[in-house]
Order: sequence, then structure tokens, then C-alpha cells
Amino acid sequence: MIYMPIAMAILGLIYMVIKKSWVMKQDAGDGKMKEISDHIYEGALAFLNAEYRLLAVFVVIVSVALAAVSFIVPTTHWLIVVAFIFGAFFSAFAGNIGMKIATKTNVRTTQAAKTSLPNALKVSFGGGTVMGLGVAGLAVLGLTVFFIIFYNYFMGGATGTFSVDKMTIVLETLAGFSLGAESIALFARVGGGIYTKAADVGADLVGKVEAGIPEDDPRNPATIADNVGDNVGDVAGMGADLFGSYVATVLAAMVLGNYVIKDMGGMIDDAFGGIGPILLPMSIAGVGIIISVIGTMLVKIKSNDAKEAQVMGALNIGNWVSIALVAVSCFGLVTWMLPETMQMNFFGEGLQEISSMRVFYATLVGLVVGAGISSVTEYYTGLGKKPILKIVQQSSTGAGTNIIAGLATGMISTFPSVLLFAGAIWASYAFAGFYGVALAASAMMATTAMQLAIDAFGPISDNAGGIAEMSEQEPIVRERTDILDSVGNTTAATGKGFAIASAALTSLALFAAYVTFTGIDGINIFKAPVLAMLFVGGMVPVVFSALAMNAVGKAAMEMVQEVRRQFREIPGIMEGTGKPEYDKCVAISTEASLREMMLPGLLTIGFPLVIAFVPMIFGMNNMAIAEMLGGYMAGVTVSGVLWAIFQNNAGGAWDNAKKSFEAGVLINGEMTYKGSEAHKAAVTGDTVGDPFKDTSGPSMNILIKLTCLIGLVIAPILGGHAVTDGVALSETTVSANMIKKVYVQFEVESDNIAKAVVSTTILENDKTEVDERVISGTFAEVKAKVDELKKGATSIKVKSNRAELEEEFSVEIIK
Amino acid sequence: MIYMPIAMAILGLIYMVIKKSWVMKQDAGDGKMKEISDHIYEGALAFLNAEYRLLAVFVVIVSVALAAVSFIVPTTHWLIVVAFIFGAFFSAFAGNIGMKIATKTNVRTTQAAKTSLPNALKVSFGGGTVMGLGVAGLAVLGLTVFFIIFYNYFMGGATGTFSVDKMTIVLETLAGFSLGAESIALFARVGGGIYTKAADVGADLVGKVEAGIPEDDPRNPATIADNVGDNVGDVAGMGADLFGSYVATVLAAMVLGNYVIKDMGGMIDDAFGGIGPILLPMSIAGVGIIISVIGTMLVKIKSNDAKEAQVMGALNIGNWVSIALVAVSCFGLVTWMLPETMQMNFFGEGLQEISSMRVFYATLVGLVVGAGISSVTEYYTGLGKKPILKIVQQSSTGAGTNIIAGLATGMISTFPSVLLFAGAIWASYAFAGFYGVALAASAMMATTAMQLAIDAFGPISDNAGGIAEMSEQEPIVRERTDILDSVGNTTAATGKGFAIASAALTSLALFAAYVTFTGIDGINIFKAPVLAMLFVGGMVPVVFSALAMNAVGKAAMEMVQEVRRQFREIPGIMEGTGKPEYDKCVAISTEASLREMMLPGLLTIGFPLVIAFVPMIFGMNNMAIAEMLGGYMAGVTVSGVLWAIFQNNAGGAWDNAKKSFEAGVLINGEMTYKGSEAHKAAVTGDTVGDPFKDTSGPSMNILIKLTCLIGLVIAPILGGHAVTDGVALSETTVSANMIKKVYVQFEVESDNIAKAVVSTTILENDKTEVDERVISGTFAEVKAKVDELKKGATSIKVKSNRAELEEEFSVEIIK
Repeated sequence: MIYMPIAMAILGLIYMVIKKSWVMKQDAGDGKMKEISDHIYEGALAFLNAEYRLLAVFVVIVSVALAAVSFIVPTTHWLIVVAFIFGAFFSAFAGNIGMKIATKTNVRTTQAAKTSLPNALKVSFGGGTVMGLGVAGLAVLGLTVFFIIFYNYFMGGATGTFSVDKMTIVLETLAGFSLGAESIALFARVGGGIYTKAADVGADLVGKVEAGIPEDDPRNPATIADNVGDNVGDVAGMGADLFGSYVATVLAAMVLGNYVIKDMGGMIDDAFGGIGPILLPMSIAGVGIIISVIGTMLVKIKSNDAKEAQVMGALNIGNWVSIALVAVSCFGLVTWMLPETMQMNFFGEGLQEISSMRVFYATLVGLVVGAGISSVTEYYTGLGKKPILKIVQQSSTGAGTNIIAGLATGMISTFPSVLLFAGAIWASYAFAGFYGVALAASAMMATTAMQLAIDAFGPISDNAGGIAEMSEQEPIVRERTDILDSVGNTTAATGKGFAIASAALTSLALFAAYVTFTGIDGINIFKAPVLAMLFVGGMVPVVFSALAMNAVGKAAMEMVQEVRRQFREIPGIMEGTGKPEYDKCVAISTEASLREMMLPGLLTIGFPLVIAFVPMIFGMNNMAIAEMLGGYMAGVTVSGVLWAIFQNNAGGAWDNAKKSFEAGVLINGEMTYKGSEAHKAAVTGDTVGDPFKDTSGPSMNILIKLTCLIGLVIAPILGGHAVTDGVALSETTVSANMIKKVYVQFEVESDNIAKAVVSTTILENDKTEVDERVISGTFAEVKAKVDELKKGATSIKVKSNRAELEEEFSVEIIK
Repeated sequence: MIYMPIAMAILGLIYMVIKKSWVMKQDAGDGKMKEISDHIYEGALAFLNAEYRLLAVFVVIVSVALAAVSFIVPTTHWLIVVAFIFGAFFSAFAGNIGMKIATKTNVRTTQAAKTSLPNALKVSFGGGTVMGLGVAGLAVLGLTVFFIIFYNYFMGGATGTFSVDKMTIVLETLAGFSLGAESIALFARVGGGIYTKAADVGADLVGKVEAGIPEDDPRNPATIADNVGDNVGDVAGMGADLFGSYVATVLAAMVLGNYVIKDMGGMIDDAFGGIGPILLPMSIAGVGIIISVIGTMLVKIKSNDAKEAQVMGALNIGNWVSIALVAVSCFGLVTWMLPETMQMNFFGEGLQEISSMRVFYATLVGLVVGAGISSVTEYYTGLGKKPILKIVQQSSTGAGTNIIAGLATGMISTFPSVLLFAGAIWASYAFAGFYGVALAASAMMATTAMQLAIDAFGPISDNAGGIAEMSEQEPIVRERTDILDSVGNTTAATGKGFAIASAALTSLALFAAYVTFTGIDGINIFKAPVLAMLFVGGMVPVVFSALAMNAVGKAAMEMVQEVRRQFREIPGIMEGTGKPEYDKCVAISTEASLREMMLPGLLTIGFPLVIAFVPMIFGMNNMAIAEMLGGYMAGVTVSGVLWAIFQNNAGGAWDNAKKSFEAGVLINGEMTYKGSEAHKAAVTGDTVGDPFKDTSGPSMNILIKLTCLIGLVIAPILGGHAVTDGVALSETTVSANMIKKVYVQFEVESDNIAKAVVSTTILENDKTEVDERVISGTFAEVKAKVDELKKGATSIKVKSNRAELEEEFSVEIIK
């Protein structure tokens, strides 16, 4: 069974290769088209190469840091470095496949659009499918392969004996893979977001506004950079984002599955080597790939006269069928792989009996919320919907009122989104604890391949339209690609909804995994330092967004100056006789975007490290630090989700309010079109919305996931120092009015691995305090600590898996 | 000593009356000036009257609800209704004084400006002083009087015996006063914020843009409404806001002082009837009034040729001296009134010895942070500072880039503000626990009267300028009022910083008081329902802001239509022969603002009630509800503080970026002035910023304080039901592997008042859980519950202040 997800992933990748070769076999058009397409392809490659160089440096630095930590801290293993490097590599590789196929598919879509709309959809969606399956297939393959390797290495695989603690080490090490993947996402999503908007704004400001030439005009030196940007931001960025979410969600669900086993007494007897709850999330992901393949096959239209509604309908059929199939397969997998009833520890409520059906209900919650948040997004950003019409009306009184209306729309859209989301947390937790929350996320992410296919086809069609324009095709070609592009805009908005919903649920699952890894008993915001960190965490997404927006501004200004220079210095450029230096613009976007993402990136990675390690240097208690870091993570997540929804939806709403003018809108009883004052106001709104929806908004996903992942990777370091705490505890002397009862659960794996869970109850000045901590280390070490504890205790009781260690004594202190 | 704050408050009020009669004696100018001033006065009165009618209805509804609750729930007392009504009345009365004096002072300032600048400052600042002392004096007077009444009623005052529990009832009842005050603030700040911007935008859109007449032109029918708005929003709104903060801060500090006494064994021996820690915050507030009087006396300039810098310098001297005096008096009061060392319970760390000097350090933290946040605000919104210059530069590329730059400035300004704020929480807590946090807030608020005087003088000078313009005075008059107005703009920005800092610290203190009132052992966001509520809480400020912004839009549109109608229908209005119907515009602003504040108001009040009572109906555990509500409060506070800083500073920055063009700015090496394209872009930014800084931003203060206050008022209802929980606990049977140890602290006050703190330790399946709860009721009731507990326990130990109740038994269960 453990190999099932691998098989599914490989099947998915095989289908991807077949689909890819089919796409590549399509006609790539004539000379001019090919030439433009090649420019875009080369520009994209240039960005990728520059990104890879930077990535390589980054990966080396982080690897060295991780290796150093793993040698200093005994609870972490050096294999995490290997996992990290491969996580980064797999994610980069998936992005590479996606970018290449996207830039190869665009021109083929233009060519296909010459024949018919159904063909154009087939080609563009084919390209999207390759991208989607590449990401999902590599994610599942990489994660599963590394899990099996670590499972065999640390635990002897299915032939070894199962131990919750050893599995914890396996999963802690596997977290490196997820960290690697998410780091790439940081570069791809944030860097890509800056790239795409810098190129877009730069191209528009000089081209459209100053030189008065239309969009996608080949005379504009920035036009290739603009088209590359669509691929860099929307294709590669989104792909890396979802790759990261996918891996992190499955990992977090595995961690929580391990704790379900722990709650059930450290061992279950099932047909899956006793690790059914851990394998379940991987299996759902594996089956999800096959379901996505089926879903993509359903996306087709027949009529050449189809409009947006039919194309949207075709995509919807594929999407809904795959969601339904995931629900069905979740039912099958859950009932098959999980024990009929489980015990789960609910915080503050103790152990509860949970039937496997309740886990299934939790997965349904995930599917419903994923669909719900997409619908909310569509309502607030969809053409013809009330919020957009209101922004259009407000455009008539100028840019100021347009901006206010757009901001207000984005802000109000947080209401249903957050209520849905809070409901999802509550319901999935009520059904099956944090394992339920993580599986809700896993079920939602199961259709990632399908989601990405739907998502990636938009920018491909957008590019195809651009190529049609630049290579001066018949109008019918552009009309057909425009239909696809328009549908692509809607799917882009709902895709952003899906991405933030998945990021949020993923972060929550990671958050839960963090708490269990560190062994803290919750995150209490009534402790002032924790509350202070909640504030700091809440602030970070706001500042991150501002930095990302400023980065776009700076990078766009550089682009503007380069375009102005070319218009000035290259003779005949406006007449079409001089050739613009496209590559210079591509280089500027590339360099500027990678440079400008440094500061927000540093903020993301630096803050959790500072919070964890600075107080440690000052000798603060590790458990207190872990709780503070948890408060920070919660602050980032809550604020990040809010700002993501706000920025994405405001940006999307402004965009479509502007687009509404293309078909004409009724304002105060008058039809108003492009070029009117109201339209100009709407264009201003869109300028503000661009970095919102394509740079800072989507970056929030990465910010919250990466924050929680860094926390998870730090967790064993914080939790592992508990040995020292145990000593500190035993040093306190027993005063006359202090009753100290120690209860020890002492488990010995081998001479080298032993663990004691120590619960100390202190009654002092008529107050009760209970302290629970974990001592781990070699058998001799742990034994020594436990012996020390006896000195300070008025009563002690030791239970152990070794009878000779068990003991009990008490000194009664009666007032 | 208990009467000292009353004496100080009365002294302050006497000085206020003297100052008021001095101001009223000043020359009110000639016919035209008087006429305009009267219009403004009547407009302001019209708003107040309409507001009072609505208020009366609101107060009746809330009073009935509170009365009903106090009869149903035994732990609340009906006197809370009386306190509530008086709280509302005092706040409204203070607002009334402020509005009247402000509208009377403006024309006198114009008249004084005819003679000299020092005179103009003297008159306008005199008006501000009246306002400031009115608010602070009434706040301290009301709170202290009610405290003394309740102290005598419930506890027999200084002649009775002190009991922490009875004091808790006194303070719970006193919370009604604070709730009343904050409710008025909701109307004044939110309604006033909508009023002022609706009038402003309405007047500008038709007057300046459509009719092409200058600002404050008497031909514009909305001009009086605009001037009234300055008073309604900036004077009355700010006054009610700070009145609410002042009362709530002192109350919260008193609640936490009571818990200090509890931590010290329920009794301390000092020269203040054993309630020194409770009296201290009131005493600081009382002394603060006298200090503010001294501070206001220092504000004067001598030279008639003084510029902004000298005026600002005069205000700064007054401000800094009063802050320094507060520091000195805090030292005196703290060392005098507090025991030299105290025991305080630090959550999760147990009791600690805290010296009174550490409490003094906590007050210093409050003073430093108040000044720090004001400085940060000044940096991000000050003319000539880097952030403003950047926005000015970005205006050259259009409204879009201006908006992005302004948004980014507001967002980045959260960085230093939140770090300062988090540092303040941490430091003041580290010094003296949550009592330290509350006293930090109290120290900061001690100079409220001075702050308000500085704040109120701005709109007075602004109005004075308007009157000078409308009554066509010599240019020198307007020049002088412009200097005052310009300084007033800066103080308005820093005043907003002070207001949000005070609101944030107040909320935190209320939050801490809430946790102690409910008796929950912290707020653990690792519990999913609590985390879900943290998300919901985070969302509310965002939606509230959007509603407030939309409200401004709607109200402004109504104003636009009325002004257009008057221009169309009143003959000779543009030639100055027809008289505009000012009162109609005032009426529209009044009605629209009070109507439009309903929805955000409902959101503020409704959400906490729904979270508290809906789960209660479904039978959820009260402690779990209390924790959820705590999560909600934390979410609102964190998100509210962020959005307040973001919106206030972005709005302030846009405003001053626009103002920069008046003196001319250097853009790309060229001097650019009013009327340029860049200036137009800056005007658009200011349009967006107006509702940000004057409506939605400042409303956040009320939202977070009112949310925490409602929580505090609900707290005893949630905490008081603990009796039921006690029963539920005893019903669980003892299984073979369950060891249940019960430890009871049984305190009997009388036959009618008894309380038992029950700590139950359960060892089950080798897990330890400790449950601590409070049973309260009559002696017989509590005794019965405790007896019941014995049935389920394997060991019990009862300690009591009545020896006959003490007992101990245990049944050893050895594995």
C-alpha cells in the first residue's frame, strides 16, 4: 500500500509525458509567430536561469545552516539537509516543466485558434494539464519516495517495530522536503509576482500612455517581458505555490496521523503495518492524481461558436466531477485504511472515541470550503455581479471614489470568506480533531492537478492572444483566444481563492503539527509575551505587502527608463523598421524582481528565527519560546489570510470593473465605454489593483506557509532541550508547604533511545500547578534525570515498559 | 485618600468654568462673523439633539437588556443599569460642553486674530483647555463617585471588611459606567466621523469641482455643515473617544489591582483601608488633571511674528512638562500607596515578588510608548518627512502610483508602531504583570486633558479660518489662523496616534480584566473553536472599516444631490443675493450619519453577544465559551490596532502630500504647484484618505474598546455559571484506572456568600489532567456541591477558613 501513491504519481507523470508530446507535435505556426514565441520562451528561460543561480546560493546557505543545526542539536538528523535539497530541486523541476510547456503551448494555441475554438481549447488546456500533472506528480512522488527511504532508514520499514517517537523523527526529517519546496515557492511566487507587474506596468506606462501604441504591440520593447511575466507569475508562481501547499498539507496530515496512533496507545493493528492514519493522506493525494487525469479528459467543447459560458461550463464539468470523485474515494480510503474507531486527544477535553466516518466528514468539510471560497471569490470579482457594478457606478465620480469602492469590496469580501473558513476549522476539528483539519486540507488539495490545469490555461490563452496580435493574425483568431482569455481571468480569480484557502488550511495543519512537535500544552495568549508576538505576527503580512508593492514600483520605474531609452536611441523603432532590444527589458525585470524580493524574503525567514533564537541566547525557557513562536505563527496566519483575501479580491474587482467598460456599462442611465472619464478612473483603480492581486496578495500564501514550516523545522530544537528543563525542575527544593507529586512514564526503546514523560503536580501556598515535560536521550541519561527527580518529590510513581524500572513511594505531608 | 481624585476632578472643573467664562467674555466680532458662527453653533446643536434622541432610545434598550440580565443572572447586580445610564450621561454631557465651547470659541479666535497671533492662540487654546478639562474632570468625577457609592453599598466602605470577591462585584457593577461612556463614544466617533466626511466630500464635490467656488465660500449650502462636521468629528468624537478610554483604563487597572490584593492573600495592610492598589489608578488620574492644568498654563507665545515652529514649540513645552510631571507624580504615588513588595501571580510562572519600584517602571513604559507612537505617527505623516516626499514624487506618474505609495506608507508604518506596542506589552508585563500593563495605560492617559486641549484647538482654529474667509476679513487674519490650523493638523495626527495607543493599551487591560473576571485559565488558541474566533475577530475591523467607508460614500451622495438642488432651485444663490438653506444640509448630514452608523454599530455589539449566547443556548460549557470570546476579543484587538494605524497614517500621509503642493514641491528637478497634474493625483489620494483618517481609522479605537468592554460585562455571566460545571464534574464515575484527587479551598463569608475553589487532578490512562473551577453561591449550596464531589474522588483535601469544614481522606489505587 505504501507504494500505491508512487504508482499513481508515476502513472500521472506518464500521462503528462504523453500529453506533452501530443502538445509539442501540434503545429507551431509560421515564421513571425514562431519568432515571437521563441522570444517569450527565451525570456522565460533567462528568468529561470537567473532564478536558479540565486536559488543555488540560497539552497547552499540554508543547507549549511541546517547541517550545522543538525550536528549541534541531537534531536535533529542531518538527512533533513538531503530532504531539503531534493524538495527544492523537485519544486524547481516542476516549475521548469510548467514554464517550458506553457511557453511552447501558447503559440500552438494561436495556431489552433486559426482552425477552431474547440481545438484552441484542447491545445491550451492540454498545456495546462501537463503543468498540473507535473506539479502534482512530482510532489507526490518526491514526498512518498523520501518517506519510504526515511521509514526504512530510521525504523526498518514494515519489518521493523513501529514507534511513535521514531516516526516523529522520520516526519521531522521529511519536513526538510517541504521546507525546500516552499523556499522555491518564495522565489517563484514573490519574485515572479514582482516580475510580472513590473513588466506589465512598465510596458503600459510608456507604451500605452506615452507612446500611444496598443497593448502587445511588437514595437514596445517591454512587450516580450510582459508576456514572459504572465508565465513567470501566473504559471510558475502558482505552480510552485500549490506544489508547496500540496507537500506541506500531506506532511502535516501525516504528522497528525502519527499522533492519532500515539493517542491510541502507540500502536494500532491494521493491514498497513500499523501506519494507516499516516499513509491515508498520501493515498488520497495519489488517488487525486488519477482523478485529476479523468477530470481533465472531460474538459472539451464541440461547437465552434461556443461563448465564454460554454467554455466555463466545460471546465466546471471537469472540476465538479473530480471533486465528486475525490469525495467518493475519500469515503473508500477512509473506511478501508483507518480503524473503525479511533481515540483522539482533544485539547482540554481528553481522549474521545472517533469513528472513521467522522474523518470522512472532515474531508467533506475541506471539499465544501474549497468550493465555497472559490464561489465567494467569483461573486466579489465576477463581471456583472453586484460588487463590480457598484465599483463601475462609483467610477463616474472619479478615481477617488472608484478606489474607495474597490478597497471596500475587498474588505467586505473577508466577511463570508472568514466565516466559511472559521466554520471549516470548527467543523473539521469537531469531527476529527486536528487530524480532521489536516485531512480536510488534504481532500481539498487532492484535485491540485486539475486546479492547476484550469489555472494555467488562462495565461497560456492570454499569451496566445498576445502572439496573435503581435504576429498580426486575422481578427477571428484573437476573438477565439479572447474567449479563452476571458474565461481564464475568472478561473484565475477562483484559483487564487483556492490557493489562499489551501494555504490557510495547510498553515493550520502545520500549526497543529508544530504544537505536537514541540510538546507544549497549547498557546496561551493570556501570557503577555505570547500576546506581544501575536501582535508582531499580525503586523508582518501588512509590512510584507507594502514591501512587495514598493518593489513593483521600483522595478517598474527601471523598466520605464529602459523603454524610454530604447524609444529615444534606437532609430526607426516606432516605424517598425528598427528592432527593439527585448532581451534588455527581460533582463531588467529579471534582475529587479530577484533583487527586490530579498527584503520581504528576509522578513519572512528572519522573524521566526529571531523570535526563536534571540531569547534562547538570553537563556529563556524553551517551552516559553515555543509558545511565543506559536503566537507569532498564529498572528501571521490570521492577518495573512485577511490581507490575502482583501488584496486578491480588491485587485480582481478593480480589474473586472475596468474590463466592464469594454462591452459598455450603464451609468446614470447612459451607456459608457472605453475612453470615457469613468473608464479612466477605472484604469487608475486597476493600476492600484495590479500589485494587489498579482504580487502582494498571492505572496501572503507563501508567507503564512513558510512561517509555519520554519516553525515546524525549529520545533524539534525547541522541544529537544527539554532535558535541561527536567534538571532545572529537580533543583527546586521542597518547602514545608509544598507537595510535589511526580508521575513518570518511562519508555525504553534501546540503550540509545529512551524517553520519559514527567508530570509533576505541585501544591504550594494552596495553589496547584501541573507541569508536564518530556525528557529524551540515551537510556542512561534519562534514568539519571528521573533519579534526580526523586530527590525533590514527596511522592513518585514510575510506570515503564521495563518492569524493573517501575516504582512508587510517597512521603505524606499533612498540614 | 479615596476622596482625593474627586477633589482634583472638582478643582479641574472649577478651573474649566473659570476658563470658560474668560473665553465667553472675549469679543465675538461683528455682525457677519456672529451670524456665521451662530449657524455653526446651531448646526452643531441640531446634530447633538438628533444624536441625543437616538441615544435615549439606545440607552433605554440597553438598560432594559442589562436589567433583565441582572435579574436572571445572580452574579450581576441591577445597579449596573444605573452606572450605565450615568456613564452615558456623563460622556454626553462632556461632549456637549466641548461642542458648545468649541463653536463659541471659533469666532472669538477669528476676532482675536485681528489683533495678534498670541491672542488668537490664547483664545483657541483656551477653548481646547475647557474641552480637555471638561472631559477629564467629568470622567474622574463620575468614576470615583460611583466607585465610592458602590464601595459603601456592597462593602460598607472603609468601615466594612475588605473582601476580594465583594470588590469584584463593586468593579463588575462599575463596568456599567464604562460601558455607558463607550456607547456614547460609538455614536460620537463613528457617527461624527461619517458626518464630517459626508459634509466635507459633499461640499467639495459640488462646490469646488462643479461650481468652481473656493472652500468655505458662504454661497455653498454645505459649507456650514462642513464646519459643523469639524466640531462633530474632531472635537466631540475625539472627546468621547478619550473619555471612554480614560474611564475604561482606570477601571481595568482597578480590577487588576483587586487581583493583586487577591494574590497577596486576599488582604493587605496599608494606610488606604487595604485597597491601595485599587485606589492608585484613580489617584494617578486625579493628579493628572492638576498636572494638565499646569501644562495648559505653559502654552503661550509672545511674538506676533511667530511661525508654525514657535506655536508647535509652545504646545510641546506644555505637553512634555506635563508628561514629566506625571512621571514624577507616579513615582510619588506608587511608592506611597503600594506595599513595598507585592506578590503577583504570573500566568504559568506562579507567584512572584514584585517591588513597588517595578510598578513605577511600568508607568514609565506607558509614558514612553505614548510619546513613541506619537513620534512615529508624526514621522509617517509629517510635512517634509521622507515618506511624504516619496508620495509627492509618486504623484508625478498619476493617481494610481500616488495611491499605491500612500497605502504602502500606511502599511509600513505599522512596523515601528507594532514593535513599540509589543515591546510595551512585554516590558510592562515583565515589570508588574497585567497590573503593570494597566498602569502603563493609566499613566499614559493621565495627561488626557492636556492632549485633548492640544487636539481640540486644531479644529477651532480651522473653523476660525473658515469664519474669516466667509466673513471676508483682511488677509492677515486668515494668515494667522492658517498658522494655527497648520499646527493643528500636525497635532491632529499625533493625537490620533495617542488615541489609538491609549485604545490599544486600554483594550489589553480590559482583556486581562476579562480573563480574571471569567476565571478561565488563559486563552488557548490551540483549541480549534478559539482559533476560529480569533479569525472571526480579525475579520471584524476590516468589515467595519468597509462599512464606515461605504457609509461616507452614501451620505456624501445625498449631500451632493441636496447642494445641486439648491444651486438649481434657489434664485441668485451664485450671485450672493439668494440665501442658501444651510440647515437642510446640516439635517442631511445629521440624519445620514446617524442612520449609516447603525450597521457597523450592530456589528460591534452583536458579534460578541452572538458568540457568548448562541453557544450557551446550545448547551456549550461556559468556560469554553469564555475562552472563545477571549479569542474573538484578541482577534479584534490585534487586527483593529493594525487597521487603525494603517488607515490613520495612510490618510494623514495623503493629506499632507496634497498640502505639500501648496508651498510647491520639487519633482524631477521641477518646482510643481497646486493645479498641476501631480497635484490632481495628490487630491485623488486625499479623497481616498479622508474616510480612512477621519472615519474608519479612528472608529477602530471604539470598536476594540467596546468589544473588550462588552466582554467584560458578559464575563460575570459566563464565570458565574461555574456552579453547574461543578456538578457536571462530580457526575463522572471513577473507573478502575482513574485516580481523581480533589483539592478544595472553601471560603465562607456568611450564610449567603460562600465560595469554593476546586482543583481536581485526574490521572487516567496514564495522563494527567487538572481542572480548576470556582463554585459560588450560598453556604448551603456550596457545601452540597463539595459533598457531592467526595463521591467521585479517590482522595480529597479541604482547607477552609472554618476549621470544622476541613477534612482529608484518600483511597489508594495502586496498579
